[in-house]
Parts: sequence; C-alpha cells; structure tokens
Amino acid sequence: MSVARLFLAAAALCLAACSPLPLRGTGDLGVVIERASGSVEIIDTSARAVLATVAGLGDLSHASVVYSRDGRYAYVFGRDGAISKVDLLQQRLDRRIVQAGNSIGGAISQDGRLIVVQNYVPGGIKVFAADTLELLADVPTVYGDDGRRSKVVGLADLPGNRFAFALFDAGEIWIADLADPRHPQLTKFHDIGRQPYDGLVTPDGRYYLAGLFGEDGIALVDLWHPEQGARKILSGYGRGEEKLPVFKMPHLRGWSVAGRRAYLPAVGRHEVLVVDTETWREVDRIPVKGQPVFVIARPDGRQVWVNFAIPDNGSVQVIDTDTDRVTATLAPGRAVLHLEFTPRGEEVWVSARDDDSILVYDTAKLQKVGELPAESPSGIFFTSRAQRIGF
Amino acid sequence: MSVARLFLAAAALCLAACSPLPLRGTGDLGVVIERASGSVEIIDTSARAVLATVAGLGDLSHASVVYSRDGRYAYVFGRDGAISKVDLLQQRLDRRIVQAGNSIGGAISQDGRLIVVQNYVPGGIKVFAADTLELLADVPTVYGDDGRRSKVVGLADLPGNRFAFALFDAGEIWIADLADPRHPQLTKFHDIGRQPYDGLVTPDGRYYLAGLFGEDGIALVDLWHPEQGARKILSGYGRGEEKLPVFKMPHLRGWSVAGRRAYLPAVGRHEVLVVDTETWREVDRIPVKGQPVFVIARPDGRQVWVNFAIPDNGSVQVIDTDTDRVTATLAPGRAVLHLEFTPRGEEVWVSARDDDSILVYDTAKLQKVGELPAESPSGIFFTSRAQRIGF
Repeated sequence: MSVARLFLAAAALCLAACSPLPLRGTGDLGVVIERASGSVEIIDTSARAVLATVAGLGDLSHASVVYSRDGRYAYVFGRDGAISKVDLLQQRLDRRIVQAGNSIGGAISQDGRLIVVQNYVPGGIKVFAADTLELLADVPTVYGDDGRRSKVVGLADLPGNRFAFALFDAGEIWIADLADPRHPQLTKFHDIGRQPYDGLVTPDGRYYLAGLFGEDGIALVDLWHPEQGARKILSGYGRGEEKLPVFKMPHLRGWSVAGRRAYLPAVGRHEVLVVDTETWREVDRIPVKGQPVFVIARPDGRQVWVNFAIPDNGSVQVIDTDTDRVTATLAPGRAVLHLEFTPRGEEVWVSARDDDSILVYDTAKLQKVGELPAESPSGIFFTSRAQRIGF
Repeated sequence: MSVARLFLAAAALCLAACSPLPLRGTGDLGVVIERASGSVEIIDTSARAVLATVAGLGDLSHASVVYSRDGRYAYVFGRDGAISKVDLLQQRLDRRIVQAGNSIGGAISQDGRLIVVQNYVPGGIKVFAADTLELLADVPTVYGDDGRRSKVVGLADLPGNRFAFALFDAGEIWIADLADPRHPQLTKFHDIGRQPYDGLVTPDGRYYLAGLFGEDGIALVDLWHPEQGARKILSGYGRGEEKLPVFKMPHLRGWSVAGRRAYLPAVGRHEVLVVDTETWREVDRIPVKGQPVFVIARPDGRQVWVNFAIPDNGSVQVIDTDTDRVTATLAPGRAVLHLEFTPRGEEVWVSARDDDSILVYDTAKLQKVGELPAESPSGIFFTSRAQRIGF
C-alpha cells in the first residue's frame, strides 16, 4: 500500500505539473482582434484553424499587437490604456494592466525586454518590463513653456533599443534611447510640421516618417544622420487644396516598402502613390477602386494588396509591382478591415468584420482557400512580427 | 482499492501522455552544428543558453539546416546524403533517412510542406513530405545525349513552391515548380556558363544567381522575366587572369543584400565587392584583412560582418554600409567558421571551431556579451530562417 501511496503522490504531482496542452512551435501562430467582444482568437496558419478564444481584454477598438521574441506571448494594446499579455500556448490571459486613460498602441524593443506604450491622456510614453509588465520609466511629453503635455502618436521601435514617436500637439519628433531603461535619453526634433498624426519607420530601420494633419506633406528623419534634422517631403501629400472629403484617414502604418519603392494610400483620392525611397519623390500614381486604407506588400514585394474606406470596403485590389497596375479585384466580404500575409507570403488572411469571417487567399492563384469564423474581426497579427523591425 | 487502481491507471496514462518538458515558444531557438561529433546543440538566444545536445546525425561536414514553418523542427542536411529531422521541443531526433550517397544541402518550400535536397551522387533533386519524409518525387538531372547525370548545386526555394538549382556538369539552371509535388514541372536554362558551383536567390525572390567555377562571371536569371533567359554579369568576378591562390572558395550563400546593394566576397583577393542590384554592376571594392568567406548583413542592413579563410580565420571585420569602410576588427577566437544574427540584429553569434566556443556579440557596442561551449562548432542556424525566402 505504501508503494501505491507513493505512486499516487507522484501521479498527483505530475497532474499538477504537466499541462494538458501539447508541445508545439509558435512560428505559425497569430491572433485576430474581435473588437466588439473584447476578445482575441488564437489562430494556426498551418492548420488554418482557430485554436482558442481569449476574452476579457477590454476596449479593443483600434487595438494593436506585438510579440515576445520567443513568439509565445502577444501584447495587446487597447484603446482604454490597457496592456493585455496573452499566452498563446496556455491559451489564456497571462496578465493585464491599465496604464493610462487613453492609448493608441505600443511597441517592443529590439532585444524583446521592453514594452513601450504611447498615450494620448496623459500624454507621454511609458516603459515596462516585457516579462512582468513592471513600470520602468514614465516620459511625459511636456512641451513649450507652460507644462502642457502632448498626445503621442506614431511610436516605432528602432535598432539599438531605441524608439521614435511624434508629438501631435507640439509638432515634434522624439527619439528615446533605452539602453538604460530606467533613464531614457531623449533626442528632440522641433518644428517638424503641424500636427503629426501617425508615423512609421522603414523596414531597414533607417527613416522615420510622420504624416501631418495640420498641413500637407510628411516629416522625415534620416536616423543614420540625425544631425541633419527633420525635413519635409512629398509636399503635395495630404488633403490638399481642395480639402477632399476623407472617409477614413489612412494610417501611415498602411504604407509599405517593396524593393526601393514605397506604396502609400493617397489621402481622399482613389489612388495609390509610388515613392522612390532614395529621393523620396513621387514616381507614379496607380488608379484604384476607392479611397485606400491599408496598402500592404507581400513579403517578396511582387504584389501589393489594398483595402478601402466606405463605400468600397467590400473590395480588395492586387497591384503587380512589376507593372505598377491593378491585376485583380476581389470581393472577400463585407467591411474588410485588415490584411496580414503569412511570413513567406504564400497566403494572405483578410478580416471581413460584417460577415464575422476571416478569409484566406492563395496569393499565387488569387483564390480563396479557407474561411474561419470570428466575431467582428478587425486586426490580424502573426507571430512573425516578433522578428521584424518597426512593427 | 478499485478507486486507487483507477487513479493509478489515470496517473500512468498521464505520465505517458505528458512531457517532462515545459511549454515554450520557438521563435528564439536555433541549432549549432558540431561537425566533428555528428551532433547539434539546441540553443536559446534569449537566455544565451545551450538547452540540449542531439547526437547521431552522421557526417555533418558541410551541413546546412532549414526549419519547419512552426519553428519546431530543424531539418539537418549532412554530407552523407542524410536528412535528420530534429525536434527542438522534445530535444531529440524525430526521424532520419539516408536518401543519397553524397549530398550538399536542401531547402523547404514556401508553404512548409516539402523538403527538397540536391545531390551530387546520384545527381538530381528529390522531394520529400516535410512531416513524414516520405519520398514524393525524384528528378534526375540528365543532360546531353548519353544519359549522364549532373551534380546539383545552389538549390534555393522560390515564391510559389518553386525551387531553382544549377547543374555543375551541364552548365544549366533549372526551375522546378512543385504545385503538384509528385509531378514536378521543369523549366531549363541552357548554356548559362561553365561549371556553376553555387547559387542563391535574392531576399525578394526575384533574381537567381549562379557563380561559375569554369570561367569568370556570374549567371543571372530574372525570375520575374524567365522569357529573357540567363545572362552573364560581373564578368571580372572569379579567379581572374592571374589565377590567384584561393584558400577557400567562398560560398555564394555568403553574399548578402543590404538595401539595393549586394556585398560579396572577392575570390582570392582581400576585398569585399559592392554591387548595385538594379544594374548588377560593381560600384565599390572595400579592402579587408584577408580572403573573405562569409559576408553577412545585419538584418537592418547598416552593418556587414565578414570572416576569412586561413591564415586570417581568427578575425572578423565589420563594415559600415553608410560609408562602405571597415569600422572594427574583432578577434573572436580560433577558426571562425560562421556567423548568424538574431532575428532583429541586436546580437550576432559567432562559431570559433578550434576554441570549441560560440561567442555572442552586441552589434551596437561591438562588444562580446556571452560565450557558450560547443564541440568544434561550424554552422549556426536560428529558427527565424523559417520565415524568410531563399534560406
């Protein structure tokens, strides 16, 4: 009997220690934001399957996601200032903090140790330890002489554990060097233009660009040559003289770079602009079906996929970058909000919010090869983002 | 007692079913080839730790590795024609087959379902199912009129489940389309130059290049325009008129592309060549310490790291791609054989074979930050390769 007891004790220990979930790799996982229900789906792009739904993430309108460098944890940034750390393997919420009143996304450092969030209210960035979400630094974006704090937009991670962001109210771009995370070192660029509303860094980490809402044009900083300061490019880019009605202000994050060219949504026009990233001059305009929102390159750069603002948000168009013309128009479903390519580009996953559906397309044949249920899906984010700069 | 028996049965089931190994992400894992002992180390780049050693992989001189798309399995291609599938999570050999007498590496399809190997003896490629290693197709590289088979070199995966490779004896480049894996469709380019000895595809999947041993120059195919055929570029590239002594023929896989420029080892000279990838003309030569072997760009393209043939194989040099000049010379250890960057480039891991050591460098500070033991280490391969084209 004592042997049996011993065995029972061992069995109990094993039951407690071991997970019912099998070992699995994380390279083909991702999450889909279910904005209406405050939940995320965990998906598997190899099996084209929904593995689990994790709820309790709060207000996920305008949510974005970054990943831990091992691909196990998704950090979901909600509009309500929360950071939710989701464990894709245990399929549960690992931890969650509310760190501000109104937030607009975050980023993860090159070494994966730091999470940085950009806040509207109160304006500034905050730095957290990626493992525990412990607060390490708080950088209020105070500008001018009377202590006002600016809203922060366009946060992007840079090589060397640095981050770039723009101050909407101040018209400034700041770079925070977090070599010592508790003591951020700031470099500030003043008078970069009126009301920067979004920003991005090019995939090589060299150029930081901030779109301007208060005037036409884009502010650009060459991060390899910060001593040259910020300069204005694409002075015609923006709402322009005619002040066209803009149904949805496109995100700069909807830009993409393929080879030496950047493809970006024209504001208020049925066009995708093509810009040479060496001269930063416009070299082409591609007519498309509606006002573009996301303009996303397949990882090899041969195709660029475009979705649109209402009333054309049931369509997606495909541009061949060899000819810079539209070669296909697809109708994935109602209210297409986002697209995400599999890491090597053989498929693209498309969210159709009003059909409660995720559509999977083969990018070579331009045919639908799969469909998954999701509740009002918006953003789709794969773990391969962990391995890229500026995501 | 029957309850206890039931419990014992349940416990036994659980013990059988559940692994003693904890759940973990695979995005920060990799393997190091231990060539002398026919084993691989499984390493963790977040913890900078060796997790396990897996032995029994045969002849690992000239070994290479690709990864399953979930990052869980490493496929190790040995010189002896074996494919060893290593489970990084169970830390053991999952399966192993010997598929040829003399082999020189393999590749994995864009969708992760197919493993393709290139064989010297008997000459040809073979196609296997990635999960089971079942043989799906055998493509002998027969050329000319008398049924001879050519050695195959320079195998590279392309977008669309296609593969490119070169025929050393035939002077040809073939493209195999594996949309139907059991019935490969071949496209052949004849008379591409004498004795192609290695090949690569650019990171965007557009250009396939084969280095020539039998003459100077490189054969190039624009895969977006196969109707244009192969053409010869860099006619001065090779051993040249003087037939310099070449201590180690550099792999073309040692090339790298940063921005619109390719950096490549000059053959037999103490120089790194810089080539414009739009014109495919040489635009610069950078003096370096010895005969370069691997010339590898940091993922953001700002730095290029170079190792050397004997007698300079204890050194590594760093080129700043903004100025195209050497900015640092490091001495990691004796017989530096390979370098691998972490996915976002904050570190580089360097193998020093004759010191039985892996050195880890911070690429921003150019300082050594870690050291791990390994038995005669050669190649280092991280799971992030699963997510890239042409690796």
